[in-house]
Amino acid sequence: MKPYASMNAAELQAELAAVRSRYDAARAQGLKLNMARGKPGREQLDLVSDMLTILTDPADCLIDGVDARNYGELAGLPAARALYAEILGCKPSEVYAGGNASLALMYNVISKAWTFGLKDSDRPWCSYEKVKFLCPAPGYDRHFRISETFGMELVTVPMTAEGPDMDAVEALVKDETVRGMWCVPKYSNPDGIIYSDETIRRIANMNPAAKDFALMWDNAYCVHEFEGEFVPFPDILSLCREAGRPNMVYEFASTSKITFPGAGLAVMATSEENLAYLMKLLGVETIGFDKVNQLRHVKYLQNKAHTLEIMKRHASVLGPKFAMVLDTLDREIAPLEIAAWQRPKGGYFVSVNAMPGTAKRTLQLCREAGVVMTDAGATYPYGKDPQDSNIRVAPSLPPVEELRQAMEVFCIALRLSALEKLLGK
Amino acid sequence: MKPYASMNAAELQAELAAVRSRYDAARAQGLKLNMARGKPGREQLDLVSDMLTILTDPADCLIDGVDARNYGELAGLPAARALYAEILGCKPSEVYAGGNASLALMYNVISKAWTFGLKDSDRPWCSYEKVKFLCPAPGYDRHFRISETFGMELVTVPMTAEGPDMDAVEALVKDETVRGMWCVPKYSNPDGIIYSDETIRRIANMNPAAKDFALMWDNAYCVHEFEGEFVPFPDILSLCREAGRPNMVYEFASTSKITFPGAGLAVMATSEENLAYLMKLLGVETIGFDKVNQLRHVKYLQNKAHTLEIMKRHASVLGPKFAMVLDTLDREIAPLEIAAWQRPKGGYFVSVNAMPGTAKRTLQLCREAGVVMTDAGATYPYGKDPQDSNIRVAPSLPPVEELRQAMEVFCIALRLSALEKLLGK
Repeated sequence: MKPYASMNAAELQAELAAVRSRYDAARAQGLKLNMARGKPGREQLDLVSDMLTILTDPADCLIDGVDARNYGELAGLPAARALYAEILGCKPSEVYAGGNASLALMYNVISKAWTFGLKDSDRPWCSYEKVKFLCPAPGYDRHFRISETFGMELVTVPMTAEGPDMDAVEALVKDETVRGMWCVPKYSNPDGIIYSDETIRRIANMNPAAKDFALMWDNAYCVHEFEGEFVPFPDILSLCREAGRPNMVYEFASTSKITFPGAGLAVMATSEENLAYLMKLLGVETIGFDKVNQLRHVKYLQNKAHTLEIMKRHASVLGPKFAMVLDTLDREIAPLEIAAWQRPKGGYFVSVNAMPGTAKRTLQLCREAGVVMTDAGATYPYGKDPQDSNIRVAPSLPPVEELRQAMEVFCIALRLSALEKLLGK
Repeated sequence: MKPYASMNAAELQAELAAVRSRYDAARAQGLKLNMARGKPGREQLDLVSDMLTILTDPADCLIDGVDARNYGELAGLPAARALYAEILGCKPSEVYAGGNASLALMYNVISKAWTFGLKDSDRPWCSYEKVKFLCPAPGYDRHFRISETFGMELVTVPMTAEGPDMDAVEALVKDETVRGMWCVPKYSNPDGIIYSDETIRRIANMNPAAKDFALMWDNAYCVHEFEGEFVPFPDILSLCREAGRPNMVYEFASTSKITFPGAGLAVMATSEENLAYLMKLLGVETIGFDKVNQLRHVKYLQNKAHTLEIMKRHASVLGPKFAMVLDTLDREIAPLEIAAWQRPKGGYFVSVNAMPGTAKRTLQLCREAGVVMTDAGATYPYGKDPQDSNIRVAPSLPPVEELRQAMEVFCIALRLSALEKLLGK
């Protein structure tokens, strides 16, 4: 094995024939494997299924003078708010505990901004000629899709190994039509990097022209190490407050990858002022979220330390899966120098940058061989990767053995598409 | 006791002195009672608390090839959709199972109409100069508040003993700016009446000028008899389909008053076309609702027949509470002819029409004596009852003994405010 770039035409042709024949053999296996989404596997669900028996006595439903079974408590069960305040490092009064999906909480902030405006808005966002939103990319397709669906203009910001390119961000926020930014600050989706302290400091100290600029801080992987110890992370609410813009940030988290993905607890943390404003709007929409499930989470997770213990159990399942992905890439692809990738220690993804112009083709080849992955381009605004290079690998769902098969196919596809490209086919 | 209208000035003065002294004595008790909301009492929560133990085995989480614990199934667990299709009399493919609050589903339809438009809309509602919404009144304050918050003009439609005044409705919907109507068709909030077959037929056969007219059919009390047998009720989806406007109706229901008010299951039923359209928008907002809780409901409620059995248990708690309210009114108020009320056999409210101009004063007197009830006017658009007459009594929360005390205070307050009015004080 040697770098494709160092091969001459004849060597490339020979390699193409060999790889194509391996691809045909792989395709003939009739695989049906899915690495499309950061969906936990069965084993992870089973190891947290004590959730089902953690709250069985009606007497336990009374907590802090509240009966979790009945109506009320729009901002969520006080104990659930306190639990997440400890995990995120903010105050309980800054946390609001919602339903099962943090995505829905994010959507709701944007939707409320759109129709009614945010706390510091002069008017609803829908009344502006143009609303731009910063999208560090590669990033999370569902974030970008929310902004897109409201008709915002998505502005791509390059990602660096330390987070969004802050020179670019600081320049862009001088434009008053730029009203917010999407961030996944810890184990960024998909790169798996942690924003550096310097990046976070610069973000908190931004001085956007739009006074109702919304920093959408999706801390989805705040306790989601799969290798090594928990990495402490600064509280963005404090930092924004210290920087004099306490109302700029909306932080999100959920237990979707701590307890049950389909039946977890989602929270939002923001300034008390923002919260008071949003609760008034939210009070029109609902009487409250599922407090019985909030209580299950309080009893099951207990506190930050115990939550981290549970995350160790998830790590024992996820670690070998990520190792399989990274080791296969190291062995099969690294020597060829046709792709690059990060080595995350947490989160749910491996971000692979294939040879420019080959991502779509690679995933098409995978699909035809029965391996479904996130669509090429999905990690960029409007689903369009200008380099056609970034591929998000999601190793969590398949068992290790299936993952081994899927990665074999993926590596063959990467090679085949690179060879086709180099040979101008 | 004789009708106040038949008393002369001296008799009224004597009565005022007597009632005022009774009021002062009541106030001195320092009561703290709440009849403000249709909130089930502790006893009702306890009798359905097997919900907490109905799903404890992880193996039971697999149903119809879906693991309820994991992501997915945007429209809800097929078994949950089928359960509610049976209860409402529509097709499973017309039902979408959501989170814990039907109010949130209603809000979402209006919010989506506002920002994006509905299936048959030419454009988003927010782009119109004026959007009017029909509000049969007295009605549910939270419905009216949703429309109000979006800046719609609320148009009051009088309620009759058979439902909304359909002559008025049919005339109003000729106005193209009228884009929808709120209805609680069975045990209407607060009147407790059931729309007549003729009213329902006329509603389904309306021919609104707005082709995206939204009939918001909140079937909140579809199985909520507290006296007598279950009253069958027509499927509004079929009726609208037969009338040639299948996309006109959005029906809502929930288990908030069947299982846990704070942790129930809410559903929406609408045409398959509407559902397909809305699911596309909803897919941007969430990956799915809490399917584990949906599954708990499927296992606990089983089917319509068993759900009706559970409702009999609720009836055994609620029946005596409504009897206490109605019997007290019959005994204390009827002979005075200063108020009128319906005698509902289901739902959560008793609607009392006090002497015009006395509702606010009555509730102020109640509040000062420690009895909190729904604000006067709440049952009318903008919280303004033009007659200042309608009062919503919600007997579900307090135990019967407390209810007895609260009703005593309420009746004294009704008398006192009527006397003050008659004497021009």
